[in-house]
Amino acid sequence: MTTTHPDLVHLLRGPALESFHRGALAIVDAGGAVWRSAGDIDRPVFPRSACKVLQALPLVASGAAEAFGLTDAELALACASHSGEPAHVATAAGVLAKAGVDMQALECGTHWPRDEAVLRALARSGNAASALHNNCSGKHAGFVCVGCLMARAAGREPAEFTRGYLRPDHPVMREVTAALAATTGVDLGQAPMGTDGCGIPTFGVPLRALALAFARVASGQGLSAEHARAAQRLRQAVAASPFHVAGTGRFDTRVMQRLGERVFCKVGAEGVYCAALPGQGLGVAIKLDDGNTARAAEVVMAAVIERLVQLDDDERAFIAALADAPQRNWAGTEVGRLRASDTLRSLLA
Amino acid sequence: MTTTHPDLVHLLRGPALESFHRGALAIVDAGGAVWRSAGDIDRPVFPRSACKVLQALPLVASGAAEAFGLTDAELALACASHSGEPAHVATAAGVLAKAGVDMQALECGTHWPRDEAVLRALARSGNAASALHNNCSGKHAGFVCVGCLMARAAGREPAEFTRGYLRPDHPVMREVTAALAATTGVDLGQAPMGTDGCGIPTFGVPLRALALAFARVASGQGLSAEHARAAQRLRQAVAASPFHVAGTGRFDTRVMQRLGERVFCKVGAEGVYCAALPGQGLGVAIKLDDGNTARAAEVVMAAVIERLVQLDDDERAFIAALADAPQRNWAGTEVGRLRASDTLRSLLA
Repeated sequence: MTTTHPDLVHLLRGPALESFHRGALAIVDAGGAVWRSAGDIDRPVFPRSACKVLQALPLVASGAAEAFGLTDAELALACASHSGEPAHVATAAGVLAKAGVDMQALECGTHWPRDEAVLRALARSGNAASALHNNCSGKHAGFVCVGCLMARAAGREPAEFTRGYLRPDHPVMREVTAALAATTGVDLGQAPMGTDGCGIPTFGVPLRALALAFARVASGQGLSAEHARAAQRLRQAVAASPFHVAGTGRFDTRVMQRLGERVFCKVGAEGVYCAALPGQGLGVAIKLDDGNTARAAEVVMAAVIERLVQLDDDERAFIAALADAPQRNWAGTEVGRLRASDTLRSLLA
Repeated sequence: MTTTHPDLVHLLRGPALESFHRGALAIVDAGGAVWRSAGDIDRPVFPRSACKVLQALPLVASGAAEAFGLTDAELALACASHSGEPAHVATAAGVLAKAGVDMQALECGTHWPRDEAVLRALARSGNAASALHNNCSGKHAGFVCVGCLMARAAGREPAEFTRGYLRPDHPVMREVTAALAATTGVDLGQAPMGTDGCGIPTFGVPLRALALAFARVASGQGLSAEHARAAQRLRQAVAASPFHVAGTGRFDTRVMQRLGERVFCKVGAEGVYCAALPGQGLGVAIKLDDGNTARAAEVVMAAVIERLVQLDDDERAFIAALADAPQRNWAGTEVGRLRASDTLRSLLA
């Protein structure tokens, strides 16, 4: 149940190892061949927000994105764990307006932005957080669009096809779950099932299968024609508008602003991270045992990108600094380093 | 370097283990006998803020607390990692005023409160964070008091004995380090040394020695008369004013508001937690490998308290709920549990 996974990330304070993070990693091609792996990649893992691009496939494949004229930014937001900055909130509201509904249609719940600067700005403005600020509001707006298109096709009111879309047996959620099953190749009926932070069902999927799904997103191989087209459209949208998939200063935004379509990477809660590397035809899936995403999984992803993606010298320096970074205290003094472990480096060699 | 420690805390989503936390634990009496341990308790660990009570011993032992007439709340704040709530900020400012200086004397740096509600309230007020909001401002105000007393005794200006107090060779910091060495029994000259988040030196100390120091704080045994008196005074002050050692809704505040002098527990960064249990004459030191304090180390501490401290039924239910707690998503739906692992329960049996 608690396999001993390799130590992938080290935090040093002065000369000493202060903390470290263990985890598993799968890097797989679209044929399912494993390029590298670490730890147990067959144990089911909840993919959390790292699989949002898979959950957004029906938005494009159904024709809803086209029917409602969604832009790159709006499609990127459908794949996003955004920071709740004003531009994210406005974009989410815009998607709902195009589909003819408002934020009452969202069932994801409300939370305040987690980025400190964004939270401070919102509090200072005197406004409160709404469901539009939820980091998943773009994904949920996408679900609502699919429901609205179903309603239009049936000649019914939108609410008849959007209300209750969180339920596993709702027609929209059935499409979303089917996309996850098709891309990962996993029989989700047999998988552990839980409820995600935003209320939708989440299924335990082996890292191997999750990496396979991202290799398929990277290459189109092994996907239906509709899903292959949708995956390409979503990757292009995120590359064109990386701010909308995360936010100011965030890892995914910074990496994709810099590397464009060479990397599609996506953060998830609880130490999960996935990426599609189209140039290599590879998919990447990471899970840190302890659930540390922001500090640990990002470092692993940076080390993977540094090893695999074609980079010029400046780009290499940019990525290397994300895989091995000085740590500063409140007064700005350098007190240590956060970095990919030698174990991880050897494993990727 | 990265020993495999037992899994102490489990996070379940639905029926499945989503994440888990490994770590080490020492529970020791004032004679150094180990009541229970888990993992490697001889590897040096930076105690971080968990050892603030040890670092505050000179404030009382030097006579500065008495000379400046510090109250229970002010002494509790000297042992605190506080939330930066208005009452914490005012108390820190009050300590400095009693010593005849102002917040310019603080060298701990500035950070915004980390508690979301406190941060929102401060941002909404239109004010900015200052060094007084730093969670360590009370400890630093205590250091400044020691320097001010030294200055008074020497007939000099306060600044001559307070400026640069962060430096390892400053007379104030030498007292603080000597207290850590005396209570833990560790030769800190041979210990790994780093810089803490608030700028002072921090030393790697085995969990066994850290637990011993807290057993000594619990019982007074093995301490100098001045340190024994100071430890008792500080424990009483925190028990009388537990709000000032942490803040609204925080673990240490809630536990000590409820259990009074039966427990002195103190959070530290990077998954460190310490406690003195006077009724049992035991000291507790915990370090989670992955550095997760708020989620993981608190659960371990709750399980230790539940096992060791004499509690009535209501108190037992209160503590049990901290060692095994439902987890809810943004919409308030129960999605899993965070709890002490069976491994930890067996180990404490």
